[in-house]
Amino acid sequence: MFDDLETAMATIIAVFQKYSERDGDKHKLKKSELKDLLHDELPDLMAHVKDQSTLDSLMDSLDADGDSECNFQEFMRFVSMVTVCCHEFFEHEDD
Amino acid sequence: MFDDLETAMATIIAVFQKYSERDGDKHKLKKSELKDLLHDELPDLMAHVKDQSTLDSLMDSLDADGDSECNFQEFMRFVSMVTVCCHEFFEHEDD
Repeated sequence: MFDDLETAMATIIAVFQKYSERDGDKHKLKKSELKDLLHDELPDLMAHVKDQSTLDSLMDSLDADGDSECNFQEFMRFVSMVTVCCHEFFEHEDD
Repeated sequence: MFDDLETAMATIIAVFQKYSERDGDKHKLKKSELKDLLHDELPDLMAHVKDQSTLDSLMDSLDADGDSECNFQEFMRFVSMVTVCCHEFFEHEDD
């Protein structure tokens, strides 16, 4: 654990770019890029996403502008959602 | 720079808790705790927030539920907003 908010924010941007730059529009995640990102970077979460249809639903829910790709703003909304869920889990564990 | 999304998310939670636990409701940031957090953790951003009224406006805009404190969900919305702005800055720099 480290303790640097600016580095955490830079890391989220760096992780997004690492995958979005692989193929096609370098500023957006295609479904295959998103899948790789989730598998490699959030393995604990992905242990709960076992089938393609769950991944499709996740992609659809992230894709607010309906272009079948995930831009950084959509990705950040997803990261926020997951982080808030993690925080709620630990918050209740504390009490 | 490190390259670990889960650690980045854990860091955001840890930074929030470090300040929220200082005084009063340990799950929320009071205005003074938010001010300390911003000054200590985001010094580059705070260089642009020079007066109390700007900080008051920021606090009001974060405080979606109007309880004069900032809960984790409100804080996460702020972190997202700043991260998206940073990403847009670097995105245009790339082109």
